[in-house]
Amino acid sequence: MQDTATPEPTRDGLPPMPPGPPHEEKHFPQNATVRDLVIGTADGLTVPFALAAALSGVVAANPLIVTAGMAAIAAGCVAMGLGGYLAARTEADHYAAERAREEEESRVYPDREKWEVAAILHRYGVRGEVLRQAVEAIASDRRKWVDFMMRFELDLSEPDPNRAAKSAATIGGAYVIGGLIPLFPYMVFSTTAPALVLSSSVTAIALLGFGWLKARATGLPPLRGALQTLAIGGAAAIVAFLVASLFGH
Amino acid sequence: MQDTATPEPTRDGLPPMPPGPPHEEKHFPQNATVRDLVIGTADGLTVPFALAAALSGVVAANPLIVTAGMAAIAAGCVAMGLGGYLAARTEADHYAAERAREEEESRVYPDREKWEVAAILHRYGVRGEVLRQAVEAIASDRRKWVDFMMRFELDLSEPDPNRAAKSAATIGGAYVIGGLIPLFPYMVFSTTAPALVLSSSVTAIALLGFGWLKARATGLPPLRGALQTLAIGGAAAIVAFLVASLFGH
Repeated sequence: MQDTATPEPTRDGLPPMPPGPPHEEKHFPQNATVRDLVIGTADGLTVPFALAAALSGVVAANPLIVTAGMAAIAAGCVAMGLGGYLAARTEADHYAAERAREEEESRVYPDREKWEVAAILHRYGVRGEVLRQAVEAIASDRRKWVDFMMRFELDLSEPDPNRAAKSAATIGGAYVIGGLIPLFPYMVFSTTAPALVLSSSVTAIALLGFGWLKARATGLPPLRGALQTLAIGGAAAIVAFLVASLFGH
Repeated sequence: MQDTATPEPTRDGLPPMPPGPPHEEKHFPQNATVRDLVIGTADGLTVPFALAAALSGVVAANPLIVTAGMAAIAAGCVAMGLGGYLAARTEADHYAAERAREEEESRVYPDREKWEVAAILHRYGVRGEVLRQAVEAIASDRRKWVDFMMRFELDLSEPDPNRAAKSAATIGGAYVIGGLIPLFPYMVFSTTAPALVLSSSVTAIALLGFGWLKARATGLPPLRGALQTLAIGGAAAIVAFLVASLFGH
């Protein structure tokens, strides 16, 4: 009873929401679609660019570079797109399997599962009779009880059923679009040198812009994000170039 | 008071743990290192294999295929390794930024933050005076209060400080090892046909084994995992082959 005033209960016992910070868009969730876009674009921009740049050093024929680049884009798009599909499917299967197991355990070992609820709340300072009654309240509805265990013991959120297909399309599409940016100069020019210069320029701009947007989406300093992303692409290209030179001679 | 017996309190008010299921290894956490290994190996096996297979269809020279393959492995290793490093660093920065914000809000808008704790517990069936006292208990220690909000409102776990470097090394290393498996036959044979046959065989075995282990690690049917992973690699190679044929003629 150390509180000054107990607000009037409204929605099934929950008091009205007190005022908070002025802007509601305060937290930046780790959005699954943003993550898929980041995965697809980052790899799509970097690997085909570095491959084409590396091959520019050892072969003088742009058509061959385009062929290798398109093969890499196609392989990466399918591998990462299907990989994303299966990862999302696996996540959904994993959730369903763990949920079934928790349900079963709440029937077979109710005291143990209640104790696990108590152990979680105890960690945050709930004690004594309040702890006991809070556990009983949660355990009185099996659906909420299992929800609680899924979320707070196992740290698993219920996956979106359409996530797998969306994830595949997002990653695969981002990979293709990202990959065509560094490769199109090799289709436009017939000699390697100008294609490499244009490819490096447009890829650098794309990496900067992409890093900027990625940082904005996660609430981090945009300039640092832009430069870091450019550094990754550059480093990948330099290493690929050196390795190709080593094997090309 | 609807419970039959209140167990004797031991560790600071938490009763002793009742017996649970016989085997302790019951849940399969989404382990970060396993995920890194999966990301690196899946891409490392698939993209260089598909690239080499696709180039086999349009160029007859194994040294060129090896050069392109090694460039792709180097680019992928650096891009994905550094990408993994930055993703882990971003996660840590994100956690620290959100934590600072929650701390600040618990000072400036304590009623609102208490209400948010109440809203979370309310969702799981805690009501009335027990809810009010549980919220007060959690909010009485600011560190635990902010811990609770980080974990249960924002679904953020405190990241391992060494995660970024480990993640980079795991993904990059897995990519190189995965990539050398489909590529070494092109180094051993001087003509394309036997290299392609051996490359397809060892990659198929590696994909099956990898899919099997991945499924085991996440508690899913291993045979299905093995076949799915093989299908991804095969699909990527076929699409890459078709695209390369299209551009190579």
